[in-house]
Amino acid sequence: MSLIVMKFGGSSVGDAERMKRVAGRILERKREGNRCVVVVSAMGDTTDDLIDQANLISANPPAREMDMLLTTGEQISVALLSMAIHAQGSQAVSFTGWQAGMRTDSVHGKARIMDIRPERILKSLDDDQIVIVAGFQGMSEAGEITTLGRGGSDTTAVALAAAIRADLCEIYTDVNGVYSTDPRVVKVARKLNEISYDEMLELANLGAAVLHPRAVEYAKHYQVPLVVRSSFTHNEGTLVKEEAEMEQGVAVRGIAFDKNVARISILGVPDVPGQLAKVFTSLAEHSIDVDIIVQSGVMNGQADFSFTVSLSDGDRALHTIRGIQSAIGFREATFEDNLVKVSIVGAGMVSTPGVAAKMFEVISRRGVSIKLVSTSEIKTSCVVENHLLHEIVADLHTAYGLDTNEQAFVGGPADRR
Amino acid sequence: MSLIVMKFGGSSVGDAERMKRVAGRILERKREGNRCVVVVSAMGDTTDDLIDQANLISANPPAREMDMLLTTGEQISVALLSMAIHAQGSQAVSFTGWQAGMRTDSVHGKARIMDIRPERILKSLDDDQIVIVAGFQGMSEAGEITTLGRGGSDTTAVALAAAIRADLCEIYTDVNGVYSTDPRVVKVARKLNEISYDEMLELANLGAAVLHPRAVEYAKHYQVPLVVRSSFTHNEGTLVKEEAEMEQGVAVRGIAFDKNVARISILGVPDVPGQLAKVFTSLAEHSIDVDIIVQSGVMNGQADFSFTVSLSDGDRALHTIRGIQSAIGFREATFEDNLVKVSIVGAGMVSTPGVAAKMFEVISRRGVSIKLVSTSEIKTSCVVENHLLHEIVADLHTAYGLDTNEQAFVGGPADRR
Repeated sequence: MSLIVMKFGGSSVGDAERMKRVAGRILERKREGNRCVVVVSAMGDTTDDLIDQANLISANPPAREMDMLLTTGEQISVALLSMAIHAQGSQAVSFTGWQAGMRTDSVHGKARIMDIRPERILKSLDDDQIVIVAGFQGMSEAGEITTLGRGGSDTTAVALAAAIRADLCEIYTDVNGVYSTDPRVVKVARKLNEISYDEMLELANLGAAVLHPRAVEYAKHYQVPLVVRSSFTHNEGTLVKEEAEMEQGVAVRGIAFDKNVARISILGVPDVPGQLAKVFTSLAEHSIDVDIIVQSGVMNGQADFSFTVSLSDGDRALHTIRGIQSAIGFREATFEDNLVKVSIVGAGMVSTPGVAAKMFEVISRRGVSIKLVSTSEIKTSCVVENHLLHEIVADLHTAYGLDTNEQAFVGGPADRR
Repeated sequence: MSLIVMKFGGSSVGDAERMKRVAGRILERKREGNRCVVVVSAMGDTTDDLIDQANLISANPPAREMDMLLTTGEQISVALLSMAIHAQGSQAVSFTGWQAGMRTDSVHGKARIMDIRPERILKSLDDDQIVIVAGFQGMSEAGEITTLGRGGSDTTAVALAAAIRADLCEIYTDVNGVYSTDPRVVKVARKLNEISYDEMLELANLGAAVLHPRAVEYAKHYQVPLVVRSSFTHNEGTLVKEEAEMEQGVAVRGIAFDKNVARISILGVPDVPGQLAKVFTSLAEHSIDVDIIVQSGVMNGQADFSFTVSLSDGDRALHTIRGIQSAIGFREATFEDNLVKVSIVGAGMVSTPGVAAKMFEVISRRGVSIKLVSTSEIKTSCVVENHLLHEIVADLHTAYGLDTNEQAFVGGPADRR
């Protein structure tokens, strides 16, 4: 008998019929002899509807009151899902975040889980109940209702699985698992049977939205085995764990891309210690996240360097940089958009020579120029011009031996709160 | 500086515009120097919409999960109302039932308040905040979310007012106050300036829906002064308190009527001690509430008696009675509907001769036969045939000198959860 945590996103429970189907799915797992804790998101567009209501009343609602408002979405879901299980003749009990013992810090809108006190959950499991927990929410030490921010329900599921020492945490979604690349772009994308936490983290951070990075970090930290699978089919899904087997002859696990990229270059920076630190401290003070940083060599006592930021932060970043031009004494700052970041990810890269070289070759064969390169042990990222993106991703997918013939999409619209 | 509790029903906060108007109303009271605790119901049709969602999923949802579901309605209201106050530049904090310290028993769907622990409310008042509390809900000792059942938000407001020793509890609604009778039936109905708890209780129980009887009982028990007033006008409303002044020359405060009445008569009951008790014990075991009971004298060792029940309980009551016919040994049970109960209420009745006689005369003048009569110190009720009801109520209203020319309705649709 296993103890499992099952997480269902908003589109999986988007209406009464889907809610009943999810209840049936949970009961299958229960009848197989598992003890089940279920984490569920708000139904379909509920969260957006609540945000719209708040915006009708206030242009700038207090974060505390937004949490009070938004947490009702998951509370509605857990109540209805529990009813659906009862209607199918089984016992279930729903819990809000605070009832489930999810203790967080007091940062409304993006609270972090501090501690989980799962006594009520464990007691209900002992009473042979299916336990339904509202995702995305918790309670602070002072008794305030908080939300975990983006990816919150995934994080709730993984953290709960760690706290109750579950054997498995299953993330149900609208695709069959984690794919070698976005199957909307590359039709021959391959569903992965296994992937390591580190690889998943790179893929998640690099724009593959199937699992939130924070949830993956949590799973890695507490060594919680994760399965990403479809709520609409019985496909086995993708197992995410510490060490995943590579398939024979394949060095790259997957290919990710991110269109939300802008490059800023700072030219002619005097080669004086501390100048680089000043630039990035200034950006950090404006809450601008910097991704890739590349510095070319120093010539004539001056250096050039480039970095990438989110496209949406681009203007602010350029403005910030120009604001410190005289203090730093650089010659010129330039801005470039119409870029995309393409990354290949795989734990086998480090032991397979020529993987990066093949990437550069594939991109250059399309006549697309590479602007920046960044590497780690398990990934290589290239920032390139954004035309021919889909062709490049498809070329890379073929070049690394990832093409297959599966059907990726099986359900409704995206389901990834 | 006074401490006041203000309660707003669902239609008063039915949309964003009304929510903003209510926020303005609260800020007026605050600027007058009052410390304000606000109790609010779910917006407009929210509760009904949630019930519809539950019915799509289950024909018979567990009461615990219904409470989990329905309490989100008030939670949405308190969050939005708090935002509306912030948007107008003042400080407010919203609380769910459990955050406000509303401790109840564990009877889901109709919990009773056991205890209120208002520490967080008092702390926030000390911090010069306006406190917004979700009506209709609480938490049991075991940490379960409960609802108070019908009239719940009124009861929340009155109970809170008692717990924090408020100077006044204001119930805002869609009429200007408590009327001498239903102004939809009698256009010349008079708004009352004052009414006693006991009179209000009779009027509330007798079908005047402006205040829930349970809330009035609570107010009487804890001697909380209540004001019923409009959320749409600045009319002074009706003050409900222990002893209310009667206007000059008026013995009757108001006239109530109840169309939800059926009469059952049991004929030829052997005059043996304990038979009557058996009948009503049997009804109580089937959760059937009995209202008026009348027994005529005993003749030939047999008695006849009649009682009234809710029309909706009529069939079950008759079935129950017939089920014990052989055990009791009565001759016959008869059932009568198409009835209505009309009542005159007033603390002055007891000291004014001829008040009841005038009632019988007014009714008989319309040629309507009186089926049952029941009296107490402050009321006389007649169960009569239901034709000419409105004419009889209007006749009584005139006969007791209650007619006036005010405008009763000032706002939206009924607002009395």
